Amino acid sequence: MTRIEEALAKATVLVESLPYIRTWAGKTVVIKMGGETLEDDDLLGALATDVALMKFVGINPVVVHGGGPQISDAMGKLGKKAVFVGGQRVTDHETMEIVKMVLLGQINKRIVTTLNAQGVLAAGISGEDGNLITARKALGSVGEDLGFVGEVEKIEPAIVNGLISSDFVPVVAPVATGPDGSYNINADVAAGAIAGALAAQKIVFLTNVPGLYRDLGDEGSLISETTADQLAKLLADGVLSEGMIPKIASAVSAIKDGVPQAHILDGRVKHALLLEVFTDEGIGTMVTA
Amino acid sequence: MTRIEEALAKATVLVESLPYIRTWAGKTVVIKMGGETLEDDDLLGALATDVALMKFVGINPVVVHGGGPQISDAMGKLGKKAVFVGGQRVTDHETMEIVKMVLLGQINKRIVTTLNAQGVLAAGISGEDGNLITARKALGSVGEDLGFVGEVEKIEPAIVNGLISSDFVPVVAPVATGPDGSYNINADVAAGAIAGALAAQKIVFLTNVPGLYRDLGDEGSLISETTADQLAKLLADGVLSEGMIPKIASAVSAIKDGVPQAHILDGRVKHALLLEVFTDEGIGTMVTA
Amino acid sequence: MTRIEEALAKATVLVESLPYIRTWAGKTVVIKMGGETLEDDDLLGALATDVALMKFVGINPVVVHGGGPQISDAMGKLGKKAVFVGGQRVTDHETMEIVKMVLLGQINKRIVTTLNAQGVLAAGISGEDGNLITARKALGSVGEDLGFVGEVEKIEPAIVNGLISSDFVPVVAPVATGPDGSYNINADVAAGAIAGALAAQKIVFLTNVPGLYRDLGDEGSLISETTADQLAKLLADGVLSEGMIPKIASAVSAIKDGVPQAHILDGRVKHALLLEVFTDEGIGTMVTA
Amino acid sequence: MTRIEEALAKATVLVESLPYIRTWAGKTVVIKMGGETLEDDDLLGALATDVALMKFVGINPVVVHGGGPQISDAMGKLGKKAVFVGGQRVTDHETMEIVKMVLLGQINKRIVTTLNAQGVLAAGISGEDGNLITARKALGSVGEDLGFVGEVEKIEPAIVNGLISSDFVPVVAPVATGPDGSYNINADVAAGAIAGALAAQKIVFLTNVPGLYRDLGDEGSLISETTADQLAKLLADGVLSEGMIPKIASAVSAIKDGVPQAHILDGRVKHALLLEVFTDEGIGTMVTA
Amino acid sequence: MTRIEEALAKATVLVESLPYIRTWAGKTVVIKMGGETLEDDDLLGALATDVALMKFVGINPVVVHGGGPQISDAMGKLGKKAVFVGGQRVTDHETMEIVKMVLLGQINKRIVTTLNAQGVLAAGISGEDGNLITARKALGSVGEDLGFVGEVEKIEPAIVNGLISSDFVPVVAPVATGPDGSYNINADVAAGAIAGALAAQKIVFLTNVPGLYRDLGDEGSLISETTADQLAKLLADGVLSEGMIPKIASAVSAIKDGVPQAHILDGRVKHALLLEVFTDEGIGTMVTA
Amino acid sequence: MTRIEEALAKATVLVESLPYIRTWAGKTVVIKMGGETLEDDDLLGALATDVALMKFVGINPVVVHGGGPQISDAMGKLGKKAVFVGGQRVTDHETMEIVKMVLLGQINKRIVTTLNAQGVLAAGISGEDGNLITARKALGSVGEDLGFVGEVEKIEPAIVNGLISSDFVPVVAPVATGPDGSYNINADVAAGAIAGALAAQKIVFLTNVPGLYRDLGDEGSLISETTADQLAKLLADGVLSEGMIPKIASAVSAIKDGVPQAHILDGRVKHALLLEVFTDEGIGTMVTA
Repeated sequence: MTRIEEALAKATVLVESLPYIRTWAGKTVVIKMGGETLEDDDLLGALATDVALMKFVGINPVVVHGGGPQISDAMGKLGKKAVFVGGQRVTDHETMEIVKMVLLGQINKRIVTTLNAQGVLAAGISGEDGNLITARKALGSVGEDLGFVGEVEKIEPAIVNGLISSDFVPVVAPVATGPDGSYNINADVAAGAIAGALAAQKIVFLTNVPGLYRDLGDEGSLISETTADQLAKLLADGVLSEGMIPKIASAVSAIKDGVPQAHILDGRVKHALLLEVFTDEGIGTMVTA
Repeated sequence: MTRIEEALAKATVLVESLPYIRTWAGKTVVIKMGGETLEDDDLLGALATDVALMKFVGINPVVVHGGGPQISDAMGKLGKKAVFVGGQRVTDHETMEIVKMVLLGQINKRIVTTLNAQGVLAAGISGEDGNLITARKALGSVGEDLGFVGEVEKIEPAIVNGLISSDFVPVVAPVATGPDGSYNINADVAAGAIAGALAAQKIVFLTNVPGLYRDLGDEGSLISETTADQLAKLLADGVLSEGMIPKIASAVSAIKDGVPQAHILDGRVKHALLLEVFTDEGIGTMVTA
Repeated sequence: MTRIEEALAKATVLVESLPYIRTWAGKTVVIKMGGETLEDDDLLGALATDVALMKFVGINPVVVHGGGPQISDAMGKLGKKAVFVGGQRVTDHETMEIVKMVLLGQINKRIVTTLNAQGVLAAGISGEDGNLITARKALGSVGEDLGFVGEVEKIEPAIVNGLISSDFVPVVAPVATGPDGSYNINADVAAGAIAGALAAQKIVFLTNVPGLYRDLGDEGSLISETTADQLAKLLADGVLSEGMIPKIASAVSAIKDGVPQAHILDGRVKHALLLEVFTDEGIGTMVTA
Repeated sequence: MTRIEEALAKATVLVESLPYIRTWAGKTVVIKMGGETLEDDDLLGALATDVALMKFVGINPVVVHGGGPQISDAMGKLGKKAVFVGGQRVTDHETMEIVKMVLLGQINKRIVTTLNAQGVLAAGISGEDGNLITARKALGSVGEDLGFVGEVEKIEPAIVNGLISSDFVPVVAPVATGPDGSYNINADVAAGAIAGALAAQKIVFLTNVPGLYRDLGDEGSLISETTADQLAKLLADGVLSEGMIPKIASAVSAIKDGVPQAHILDGRVKHALLLEVFTDEGIGTMVTA
Repeated sequence: MTRIEEALAKATVLVESLPYIRTWAGKTVVIKMGGETLEDDDLLGALATDVALMKFVGINPVVVHGGGPQISDAMGKLGKKAVFVGGQRVTDHETMEIVKMVLLGQINKRIVTTLNAQGVLAAGISGEDGNLITARKALGSVGEDLGFVGEVEKIEPAIVNGLISSDFVPVVAPVATGPDGSYNINADVAAGAIAGALAAQKIVFLTNVPGLYRDLGDEGSLISETTADQLAKLLADGVLSEGMIPKIASAVSAIKDGVPQAHILDGRVKHALLLEVFTDEGIGTMVTA
Repeated sequence: MTRIEEALAKATVLVESLPYIRTWAGKTVVIKMGGETLEDDDLLGALATDVALMKFVGINPVVVHGGGPQISDAMGKLGKKAVFVGGQRVTDHETMEIVKMVLLGQINKRIVTTLNAQGVLAAGISGEDGNLITARKALGSVGEDLGFVGEVEKIEPAIVNGLISSDFVPVVAPVATGPDGSYNINADVAAGAIAGALAAQKIVFLTNVPGLYRDLGDEGSLISETTADQLAKLLADGVLSEGMIPKIASAVSAIKDGVPQAHILDGRVKHALLLEVFTDEGIGTMVTA
C-alpha cells in the first residue's frame, strides 16, 4: 500500500469503530478471563490494552477472573492432589486457603498491575470485599459434599459501582462470603451473576476455544449467533462439554437477568475482545435473548 | 491479506489510537473549517464522522467555520461585486446582511445537520449569541474603511461552555456584536480567539493546502513541525501567502494565549482530522509553543 | 401629581406585580413573535425589555419567531414570486434556502442582539440544532405538494432546556430537520409544539390584531376569555380568518398538551407582553383549558 | 388618564425597575426595622410586601428588628421603670427576661407572620440561635455597669446562610449569647455587624425621620448622598442626635466591612423600601464608601 | 474495680452502643420535652448532652418543647388567672401574648443556648416560622370556646428539614399560625404531628412519670412495651390520666402516620434519653405499631 | 451496683465519649494492625468492633496490616527459610510470591470479613491497586541486596479516598508496584506514608507491647506522651529495639507530613483502640508534633 492508502485504511478502521463506540458509551461490560488466558504475558498485555481502550472510550469494563490451572499448580507444589467431582474442585479448608492465596495473592494482582501499566487505574477485589458475593454451600450433582464450594446467593454491587464511579476498572476474584468462611465460586457463574446485578449490557467469556460448536469435532460448525432459549435446550440435552457448561449456563442466566448480550470468544487470539467490541468482525459465538 | 491478518491489522490501528484517546480525553479541540472544505458533501460527511468520533471518545470538539466562497457566490447572484482590500472583504451594510444570511442561514446549519446525522447533537450559534464575540471596527492596513469588518475585542465563552456541558458540539459562525450592529470577523482569527478563551488544548485549521511550505513552489519543503516563535518571524518577514497569514497569525496568537498545539491540515484529504488526532500519521504542519 | 403621589403611584404598580411574579417564578413561558412585530425597532426594543424583565424575575421565557413578510420581501428582491396555497407558502428548494437565510441570518440574530442589549444573554437556534424539531412532509388541504413545508413530528427539547439551565433566553427559528433536508414550519405551530414539549405554563401569541373577535367587523366583540373547547368549535365551524387559524389551532393543541394558558395579544401595543404578565390589565384574548 | 395612558404608565414603572432588578439579583440586603415601624399594621404590611417583592425578584433580604418602645411598654405594664444611660437601656436580669419575651415572643413572630402572609417563607431567629451573635459585656460611656448590655464580639452567619439557601427570609432579633447568659444588643449595631459578616451589598435603616440632616432644624438640609468618611467625621464632631448615632456608626462600620451601600430611610413612608430599591426616586440618605 | 476492669467496663458500654448507633444513623428522632423537664438546670444540661450525642453519631434530633408551668407562673406574676377546661388552657388574646413570650422568649432560647453549650448548633423556631404549623380553632369537649387554642391542620416541614440539612438541631415551640393570629397548640400533639410529617423513626415523650401504668396506683404495673392498637383502646376506655391523654393520643397518631416507635420516658431521670437510645436498658414505655 | 447506679455508670461512659466523638467526626484515622494482633480471633473481633464504632460515629478509619509471622509460617510450610538482614526480610522472587499470597490471600480478607460481620462494609486492597503505593528498591543498611524489598516512593491516595467516599473501610496490604514487579513494604512505613498522603488526623500503631519505654526493662518507665523531636533523637541515638524502630520512624515521618497525632498501643489489650479514641483512659504512648 502507498502511504496514502495506508492512511486511508487506518481511517476506515477508526470510522468503522464509531457506531460501536456510540452504542456502548456509558454501558457496563463484564469480561470473564479464564485461567488459561492469564498464563501468557503477551496475551494478557493485549487484553489489558483492549480493556483500557474500552475504558477510555467511555465503556465501564468489569473484569472477573478464574485461576483453575494456577490453583492446581500451587496445590501440586504443596503436595496436595486436586480432586474434581463433576467438574467442580472439591475444596477442603486447606484447599480454600490455597485458592484464596492464588486468586488474590497472584492472579488478581497480576491483572491489576498489567492494567495499571496501560494507564487505566485498576482495583482488585474479592467477592468478600463489601459483601460483593454471598454464597450458600453447593452440593455435587449426586449430593456429594464438595467442601467450601458455593453457589451465588446474593450480589451486593455497591463496591463495584463505587469503584466504577471513582473511575477504576474493578477486577474481581470469585471468592465469596459463605455460611462458615470463604467459599470458592465458579468464575463463569460469578461473572454472570455480577453482570446481572450490575445491569451490564454485555458479558464476554474469554476461553480457550473459538466459540461454541454445533458438532464439537467439526471446525466448520461454529455457531456465530444463537439465543438463550436455544442454549437452554442444549444444556438440557446434555450435549455440551464439561468446560463449556458453566459458561453457557451463566450466559443463559445473565440474559434471563436482563443482560442483552453474551459472547464466547477465543481468549488466545490477540485482541479478540477489541475486535468483538469495536469492529464488524464476527468472531466467536454471540448469544442474545 | 487473510481474514486473520485483516483482523490483526484492524486491531493494530485501534491499539495505536489508545494513547491518543488517553491524552485527549476531556480536552477541548477547536476545529476551523474553511469555506472550501464545505463545498463537497463527501468531504463534509467525512469531517462530521471525525468530529463525532472525537466527541464519542470524550474530546470536546468546537467547530468554527468560514464561508468566503459561498458569500462571494451569493453576492454574485444578487448582482453585488465582492471587493477585497488586503485580503479582507469590504463589508457595507447590505453585504453584512448577505454575510449573515449565508453563514447562519446556509453554512452553519449545513454543518449542524451533517453532524446530527452522525449521532452527535450539534448546535449552531453565531458570535452574537450570548455575546460570544464582541468586535471593534477594523481598518485596512493603510487605514481604509472596510465597513462592518471587525477585530475581536472580547470572547465571552459561557454559551460555548454551556453547550459543551449539555453535551452538544458547538458550531460557531464568525459574526460578532460590533459597536453599531453585526460585524464580519475573519474565521481563522475567530477560531484562534475562541480556542484561547476556552483554554483549548489544540486548534486545527482545515484548509486547501497540505500545510505550510518553506518554499511555496516546492512540495518537498512542507514544514511538518515548527514553533510559534518561528512563525512569528515568518509573519514579520512578510513571506507568507495572503490566505495563510490569518491562519498563521491566529495559530501564533492562540499559542500565546496558552493553547499548546496548533495544526494546519489539508481539509481536502478525507479524514485528515481523524488521522491527525488518533494515529501516528504525521500530516500537515504542527505548531507548538 | 405631587412628588409623593407619583412615588405612591409607582409603588402601587410594583406592588400590583407581586402576585404575578410569585405565580410565574420558575415557570416557562413561550412567546411567539410574528414577523409584523419584528419590523419596528421601537416595538422590538420594548418587547426585548419585557422578555428581559421576565427573565430577571425568575421566569424562563422562550422566544419563537416567524418572518413571513421578510421572506416574501427577500424573495421579491431576488425576483422570485411567493406562492401561497391555503395560507401556506409553497416552498421549493430555492425558496427554502431563502427562508433559512432570512430567518436565521436576519431575524433570529436581530432578536438575539436586541435582547443582549437589555442585559440578558440570548442564544439563537434553529429547529435543526440538536434535532429540536423533526418534521414530516405536509400536504395542502386538498393534497397539493407544498414542497419543503413540514408538520411537526417530534420535539427534542434538550437543547432548549440546556440553554435555559445555562441561563440563556432561547430564540428559536421555525426550521426543522425533515426527511430530505430542511423544512419550513409554521411559526405558530412550532411555538405551540415547543410549549407542549417544555411543559410551559403559558404561551403568548403576539400578533397584529387586538385579539380574537366574536364578530370580526365589530371592535366591541373582542373575546377576553375563552376555553380550548370553544375554540376547537370555532375551528371546526370554519369561521376564523386565515391568519388566526394556525394561532388558534396551536393554542388549542398546546392546551391539550397540558399548557394551562394561551394568550393572543396585540404585539403592536408597546409592552403588551409586560402588561399581560405583570399587571391586572385585561388585554387581548386568554384561552384556558 | 385614558385606559391606554394608564397602561403605559404602569409599563413605564415596571420597565424603570428592570435595571435595579438586574443589579440586585442574587445579592443580600440587610433591612433594619426600628421598633417605631412595627407599631402600625398598615406600615408593617407594606414593608412585608416590599421585602416579599425583593425576595421574588431574586434578592436575599435579611431583616433585623428592634423593639425599644415595645420593651418599655411591657416594663411599664409590669411596674418596672426603664432606665437609660447615654441612650442605652440599663438591663438587669429581670429586664433581660422582658427584652427576650418582647423581642422573641412578640415582635419577631409578628414580622414573620406578616411576611408569611405575603407568600414568602420567613423564619424568625434570635442571635443566640446557632451562636449567630456572640457578645461581650458593654460599659457605659463613663464606665457605668449597664447589666446585660452587649457589644458584638463575633458573628457566625451559618444559620442565616442556611435559611437563605433554603429560601427563607431570616428575621433576626438582636439578642446575643454573652459571657453569663443572654445579652441585649443595639439593633442598629447588630444589623450592621450581620451585614458585614454576610458580605451584604446593602444595608437599609428604616427609621422615623426622613434621613440625615445637615442642620436638624432645617428640612431643606436633608443629605441625599454622603460617604462613610464624612459620616465618621460627623460622629467624631459629636453633632449627631442620640438616636441617629448608632445608625450612623453602624453604617460606617458596615461600609468599613465591605458593604458597598448604606441607606437611612423614613420607615413611616409606605413602600419607602420598595421605592429605594426599585425606582429612580431619590429618598432618604445614601452612604457609600 | 481495678484500672483494667474499669477500662473494660467502659469499653463494654461503648461496644453495647454500637448496634444502636448502626440502627439509628441518619434517622430523625423527635423529642418532646415537657415543661417540668425544663425547670432543673442540671436535668436540662444532661438532656442537652444526650441530644448532642445523638447528633454527633449521625442521628437527627428535633426537639419540641412545652411550657405549661412557666406560662401559668408568668400569668400569675401578671395577675392573670389561668383557666383550664378539660385539661386545655383557655387562651384569650392577652394569654396568647403571654404564651408566646414565655415559650419563645424564655424556654425556647434556654434550650437553644444549653444545646449550643454542648457544641451542637441549635436553632429555635416557632410553629409560625416558615408556616411550620397551621392550626384551626379547637373547641372544648362540650363545644366550649377555648379562645386561641388550636388543632393541627397542616405541617409544612421545609423549615425543619432545611435546618437539619444545614446541620442544626431544630428546637420548636408549639405556637401555630391560626385563622386569626397565633394559636396555642398542645406540645405533645405538635410533636406527634411533626414526627409524622418528618417521617421520623422515633418519637420520645419526656415526662414526669416513669411511663404508662396498667394500674396508676401500682408501681409494679409499668407497661414496658405495648402497641398503638392497645393504646387506642385505653384512650377509648377513658382510663388514662388527663396529663397522659395527649401523649398517648399523639403517640398513637404518630404511629398511624408511619413513625415506627414512640417512647414515654421519665425526663426527671438523668440521661434517660441516652440510656433509651444507646443501651440495652429497658426504661419507660415503648409503643410500636 | 443497683440497677439505677448501673444505668448511671453506663450513661457516664457515653457522656464521656461525647467530646471525643465531636473532635474526631469527619476525620481520617489510620490504624496499623501488626501480624501479632491478627492471630487471635477474639482480639481481631474486638478490634473490628472498635473500627466499626469509629466508622459509625463519623470517623473514617483506614486499616493497614502486616503479616510477618504468617509469612514466615507459610515459608516454613513450603520448606523455605526466612532470612532477615537488619530486621528486613530478604525477599527473592519466590518469597515475594508467598508474601502476596499470605497478605492478600489470607490476612487482608480475614480482616475484611471480620469487619463486614460488624455491619460496616470493608474493602481489601493492595498497594498495587490503583497504583496506591509505588516503591523503589531498598538496600540493607550496609548496601546488601534485599531483593524485592521497597521504600515508598509515592502514594496515590485516589483509591482510598474513593472507597472512603463510597462509605467503605479500606483495608490495605503493604505490597507496592516496584520497578520490576511487586515489592514488599514494611507495614509500619506504609501506614505512616498513607496517613501523610491522606492528611489523616491520627495514626495508631497496634503492637505487642504496652507502648514505648524509657528503659526497656522497667515497666514503670512507659512514656505516655512525647514529641516527634524527642523520638527523632531516640532514633538517632540508636537506643530503640529493632521492632520499635520502623514504628517510631514512621510515627515521626507521619507527624512531619502533617499528621497531628501518633499512638503506640498494645493491640493485645481488648478494645485498646476504642479506649484510646473514645475515653479519658490514657493508654500507650502518644506522640505529637
